Amino acid sequence: MNTFGNIFRLTTFGESHGPAIGGVIDGCPAGLAVDYDLVDAELARRRGDGLAGTTERKECDHVEWLSGIMDGRTLGTPIAFIIRNSNTKPDDYEWNRDLYRPGHGDYTWQQKYGIRDHRGGGRCAARGTAARVVAGAIAKQILTQKGIAVTSRLSQSVTPPANDTAGGVVECTVTGVPAGWGEPLFGKLQSQLAAAMMSIPSATGFETGEGFHAAQMLGSEYIDCWKSDFSTQTNHCGGIQGGLSNGMPLQFRVAFHPVVTLPHNLPCIDKEGTPHTIATVPGRHDRNHTPRAAVVVEAMTAIVLTDAMLTATTNSIK
Amino acid sequence: MNTFGNIFRLTTFGESHGPAIGGVIDGCPAGLAVDYDLVDAELARRRGDGLAGTTERKECDHVEWLSGIMDGRTLGTPIAFIIRNSNTKPDDYEWNRDLYRPGHGDYTWQQKYGIRDHRGGGRCAARGTAARVVAGAIAKQILTQKGIAVTSRLSQSVTPPANDTAGGVVECTVTGVPAGWGEPLFGKLQSQLAAAMMSIPSATGFETGEGFHAAQMLGSEYIDCWKSDFSTQTNHCGGIQGGLSNGMPLQFRVAFHPVVTLPHNLPCIDKEGTPHTIATVPGRHDRNHTPRAAVVVEAMTAIVLTDAMLTATTNSIK
Amino acid sequence: MNTFGNIFRLTTFGESHGPAIGGVIDGCPAGLAVDYDLVDAELARRRGDGLAGTTERKECDHVEWLSGIMDGRTLGTPIAFIIRNSNTKPDDYEWNRDLYRPGHGDYTWQQKYGIRDHRGGGRCAARGTAARVVAGAIAKQILTQKGIAVTSRLSQSVTPPANDTAGGVVECTVTGVPAGWGEPLFGKLQSQLAAAMMSIPSATGFETGEGFHAAQMLGSEYIDCWKSDFSTQTNHCGGIQGGLSNGMPLQFRVAFHPVVTLPHNLPCIDKEGTPHTIATVPGRHDRNHTPRAAVVVEAMTAIVLTDAMLTATTNSIK
Amino acid sequence: MNTFGNIFRLTTFGESHGPAIGGVIDGCPAGLAVDYDLVDAELARRRGDGLAGTTERKECDHVEWLSGIMDGRTLGTPIAFIIRNSNTKPDDYEWNRDLYRPGHGDYTWQQKYGIRDHRGGGRCAARGTAARVVAGAIAKQILTQKGIAVTSRLSQSVTPPANDTAGGVVECTVTGVPAGWGEPLFGKLQSQLAAAMMSIPSATGFETGEGFHAAQMLGSEYIDCWKSDFSTQTNHCGGIQGGLSNGMPLQFRVAFHPVVTLPHNLPCIDKEGTPHTIATVPGRHDRNHTPRAAVVVEAMTAIVLTDAMLTATTNSIK
Repeated sequence: MNTFGNIFRLTTFGESHGPAIGGVIDGCPAGLAVDYDLVDAELARRRGDGLAGTTERKECDHVEWLSGIMDGRTLGTPIAFIIRNSNTKPDDYEWNRDLYRPGHGDYTWQQKYGIRDHRGGGRCAARGTAARVVAGAIAKQILTQKGIAVTSRLSQSVTPPANDTAGGVVECTVTGVPAGWGEPLFGKLQSQLAAAMMSIPSATGFETGEGFHAAQMLGSEYIDCWKSDFSTQTNHCGGIQGGLSNGMPLQFRVAFHPVVTLPHNLPCIDKEGTPHTIATVPGRHDRNHTPRAAVVVEAMTAIVLTDAMLTATTNSIK
Repeated sequence: MNTFGNIFRLTTFGESHGPAIGGVIDGCPAGLAVDYDLVDAELARRRGDGLAGTTERKECDHVEWLSGIMDGRTLGTPIAFIIRNSNTKPDDYEWNRDLYRPGHGDYTWQQKYGIRDHRGGGRCAARGTAARVVAGAIAKQILTQKGIAVTSRLSQSVTPPANDTAGGVVECTVTGVPAGWGEPLFGKLQSQLAAAMMSIPSATGFETGEGFHAAQMLGSEYIDCWKSDFSTQTNHCGGIQGGLSNGMPLQFRVAFHPVVTLPHNLPCIDKEGTPHTIATVPGRHDRNHTPRAAVVVEAMTAIVLTDAMLTATTNSIK
Repeated sequence: MNTFGNIFRLTTFGESHGPAIGGVIDGCPAGLAVDYDLVDAELARRRGDGLAGTTERKECDHVEWLSGIMDGRTLGTPIAFIIRNSNTKPDDYEWNRDLYRPGHGDYTWQQKYGIRDHRGGGRCAARGTAARVVAGAIAKQILTQKGIAVTSRLSQSVTPPANDTAGGVVECTVTGVPAGWGEPLFGKLQSQLAAAMMSIPSATGFETGEGFHAAQMLGSEYIDCWKSDFSTQTNHCGGIQGGLSNGMPLQFRVAFHPVVTLPHNLPCIDKEGTPHTIATVPGRHDRNHTPRAAVVVEAMTAIVLTDAMLTATTNSIK
Repeated sequence: MNTFGNIFRLTTFGESHGPAIGGVIDGCPAGLAVDYDLVDAELARRRGDGLAGTTERKECDHVEWLSGIMDGRTLGTPIAFIIRNSNTKPDDYEWNRDLYRPGHGDYTWQQKYGIRDHRGGGRCAARGTAARVVAGAIAKQILTQKGIAVTSRLSQSVTPPANDTAGGVVECTVTGVPAGWGEPLFGKLQSQLAAAMMSIPSATGFETGEGFHAAQMLGSEYIDCWKSDFSTQTNHCGGIQGGLSNGMPLQFRVAFHPVVTLPHNLPCIDKEGTPHTIATVPGRHDRNHTPRAAVVVEAMTAIVLTDAMLTATTNSIK
C-alpha cells in the first residue's frame, strides 16, 4: 500500500524523525537524462522557501541517488533515492508518546498497529511528501518531452487571523495530453487522479471540471459540444470523457482542510482517555500548508499521467 | 484495469448490448451464506423500479451464479456471475457507429482502441454498474455480520424542466467501522473510496467530511476534539484520520453530473469531423440518474470496506 | 490469486461440477481478429480427442463468448467466456463429501477454507485448464502475428501396466522471440515461466536449457559463446540470459507426476481420520495426462510471452 | 517487476557498482522485535565467510536501517534498508563498456533498455541478492515465532578442476508449516516457490518432492497414502497437495548452473559483433556459487511462506 502506480510505480518509505525518508521509482523508461536542478527546484517549492507563514524548520532536502542512474541517464532499473532527516529534534516529541492529538492519526495508527512512531507524526507527517515530489519531478521530465505541462494555482484560500490556521483549494491544469489516455472502468483517469490526490495529507475533496457544481446544472448547460477539429466548445467535463482524456486541458481541484497543528494550547487525551493539554511550539509549523501542497498535487498528477502514457502503449499490437 | 480491490477483488466485464455483463469476485471469504434476495433487491434499486423519471428499458437482471458457491455457501474460490442482456435493440444503435455524441466516451474510446462498441455506450454504459451492485451486495452481507451498515441519501438534486436532465449529490454514511481500517500513504481510506466513487459513470466530485467547505474553515473550527471514550465531539473529518477509520461514522459525498443523453435533438460529429444531428428517443433514458447511482455508491463502499477489513487482519502476527 | 499476468491478464473461475468454468482476459490488445477455429482445435487437443488412454468423459467444450469482441474483433475490453459443464454426474461424487483421497487436495482445501466442493475435484480439477487453453489460443494468435511459434513434445513418458497410471515430461520450444523480453529481478522470463508451469495441475518440476543437468557441468562446458551475428554457438541456457530472452529459441521442460486417481481401490480417510476404501470407476479417468498437459504448457507459455511482449513496449519513451 | 510478494512485499534496487543496493519491505506485521544479529549472520553466510573457493572481494555488508523500525520494533510501515557498495573498483570494468560477455546478460539488457550498467554485472550481479537475504532474515524471525524452520543443504555439487567452475543443487526443507497455506490456481505454493527460486541468479531448475523423477514413477508408487493423524505415510509430493501445504515438511530442490565468469581468457564480442578476448582476474570470482546461493534459497523461501501465512488470515471471516 506504500506503492502507487501500475507501470511507473513509486514506493515510498520513511518516518519524519527517523534516519531518512525516500522512495524507489520502478518502471521509469531507460535513457532519460535526469535534470537534477528541476528536482531541487521542486523540492524548494515544497519546502515553501520564501513563502510567508510556512514552517521555520530548515529541512535538509539533499537527495542521494542510490541506483538506477549511470552517467546521468536512467537505466530502466529501479531509481532509489533518500533524503536524510536532520534537525529532527526528537526530544521535542517525547512528551506525546502516549498522547493522541486531535486532528491527527495518532489514535488510529495506534489502533491499527498497536505501535506507532509518535515523533512529529512519524510516517503520517507531511515530510514524506518530499519523496513524491522527487518522483514527480522525474515524471515531469518525461511528460515535458511529450509537450505536456502540469501547472497549478491556489483558487481559494483563507487568511487565518493571529493564532489560527487555514487550508485552501488547489486547481491543477494539464495541457498537451492527447486523447485516449486512461483506462476503462476502475482505471478511469478521474479515478486514478482522485486516488492520487486524496492520498495527499489533509486532502478532503477532489473534483474534475465542473465538479460539485455540475450536480446543480441542467444537462443542456453541462454538455460539451464538439467542434469539427475534435476539440469541444466548452470544457465542463475537465478534459475527461468515458474515463479517458479527450485532448482538451485536464482540469481538477483539490481541497485541503486547515492545518490541524494549531499555534496555541489544545486539548488531547492519553491512551487511557485522560485529558491533557498540549502547548504547540509557535512558529514551528505552517499556518497554511496549501501553497506547499500544490507542488505535491503537481507531482502526483505527473506520476499518474506518466503511468497512463506508458500503459497506453500496450493497447494495441505494435 | 477492470479489476478493483486488493484482497476482495472484483473483475467486471461486458458491453451494454453484447451477450451479457458480469463479474468475478475473487478473495471472498469462505463459508458465507449468500442472501440472494438481498442481491435481487439491490439490483431492483439500481434499476430504479418504481422511481419516476428513470429509463423505461425493462432490463433483465436475472443473475446466473456460475462458480464459487455450493449449497448456498461461498467456497473461497472465485464467484463468477453473469446477467444476460435482453431487450437490447441493437438496431437502435446502428446509426451511431461512426458518430461521436457530445458528453460521451465515443471519441475517446475510438482514439484509444481504434475500435469501439457503439451500441448503447458499449462498455461505458451505466448498464455495467449492475455487476458492481451484485458484488456490493455480497460485501454488504459480510459487513452486516460485523455490525457495519452502509446507507446513502440524495443530499442535493435539481428537478429538470420538461426536455432537460439533471444530476445530483449522493451522501453516504457508514456506521460500525472500528478504528484502524485503511492503509497508510497511497492506500488511505479516503483514497480508496475516492478511486471507487470516481470510477462510477458520471461522477465528477468526491469529498469526505467537510470536504470543499473545509478549505474555507479555520483550524480552530475544523479540528475534532476527543472525548474520553475515544469518540470525537464533532466529526468534521468524516470518520477518517491519518488515512484510517477512527471509529466515528464515515461520511462522504459524491457529485454526479447531469444525464448527457438529452431528451431532444443534439449536435454531434462523425469521424471526419462533419456535423450531424441526433434525435434521441424520448422516454428511453433517465432524466436524472442520481437515485440509481446511490445504489452503486453503496456497493462500491461495501467493496472498499470489505477489502479494508480483510487487509486489516494482516497487520499483526496472529 | 486466480489472476495471472501483468498486462495481458487471465482470471479464471469455476468448479469441475458446478454450472460452468470460464475466464476473463483483460489487457488483450484491441483489433485482433479472433480465430475461433484455433480455439476449438486447442480445446480438442486438451480433451485428448483421439488419444488412447484418456478419459472417456465426453466433455462439452462449447465456448460462449460473453464480451470484449464485436464483429469478430477484440475491443480492448475484457474478453469473458464460459464453458458449461455437462455430463457432470454429480451423484457420482456424493460418497466422497467427507473423504480425503490420497494424492489430491481434498484435505488441504478443507483445512484452508473449512468447506470445499468435493465433486470431482471442484476447483482443483484438471477441467479448469480449459480456460487456460482458451486464453492461450488468443495469445498464440497475437504471437503468430509476430512470427513467434510455441510448440511442445513429450520428451519422456512411461507406459503404465494394466491397473496403473503414469506421468511424463513435456518439452516446450519457442522460436522467434526477439532479444530483450522479460523483466529484471523477480520478473525474469524463467521466473514467470516457472510460475506459469508449476501452476498447472500435477506439475512437479521445471527447468530451462540444461536445467538440472547444468548443475553437473563445468563452466567451460556450460557457457554459450557468441557468434558475430549475436546468436550463440550453443544454447545451454535455453534462450534466456540475465532474465531476458537472447534471441535464441526458448527451451524448457516441465515434469508431471503420474495420475493420482488410480484405476483400482485405494485407501482414504474421512474427516475423523477413519480409514475407508475408494473404488474408482475404471475408464472414467486418464491413465496418463501428460499428452493433454502439453497443450496447457503451450497455452501458459503463450500467455507469459504475450504479457512480456506488451510489457516490453513500456521500457522506453516512444 | 522489482517487487516480490502480495502482502509481505520486497522491492529491491541497486547496481553492483553503484552507490548502494537495498530494499523496501512493505507489509511486515507491526511489533516484531528485529534480531539484527540474525540479519548479519545470514549476510555472512551469503558472503561465504570462511568458505574455500568463494570470491576474495571483501564486500561491505553494513546494513543501514532507514525506516519502519523504532526502538528495535517494526512499526508496520515500510522497512527500508541499504548496504553501501565499497571496494567496488569501477576502473576494473571500463574495458567492458561495449563488450558482451558470454553467459551473462550484457547483450540482452542492452537490447531491452538501449543502455546498461556494465560495471560488474550492474543490476544483474549476484551482489543484489544481499537485499533478499536481509528481507529473508526478517521473514525467518516471523516464521520462527510460528515454529517454522527453513533449512537447506547442497545435495549435489561437482568439484571443478584447476581453471574451471561448477554449479550444484540446493535442497530446501521447511518444517512446521500447517496445512492449508498457499493459494488456488495461479498462487499454488509450488508456483510461488518456483517463481521465487527461478528469480535467483543462475537458477536453471526447480522441483518439488520427487520432481522430475516423478515423471518416471507409476501412480501406485507415487501416491502418498494417509495416516489416521492426517500425516502421510510417504512424502513424494514434497508437502504440497492441491497447491496448498498439507502439514508434512516442504521439500524442493533448485539447480544452479556453473559460474559463468571463468578463471581464464574467454571470447566475447563487442556491439558490432567483432570478437575480443577477455582476461578475467583470477581469484576475484567464485569457483562455485552454490553454497552462497543456498542462503538466498532460504531467504526467498521464508519470504514466500511469510506472505502465504499472512494471506491465509484472509480466507475466512474472523
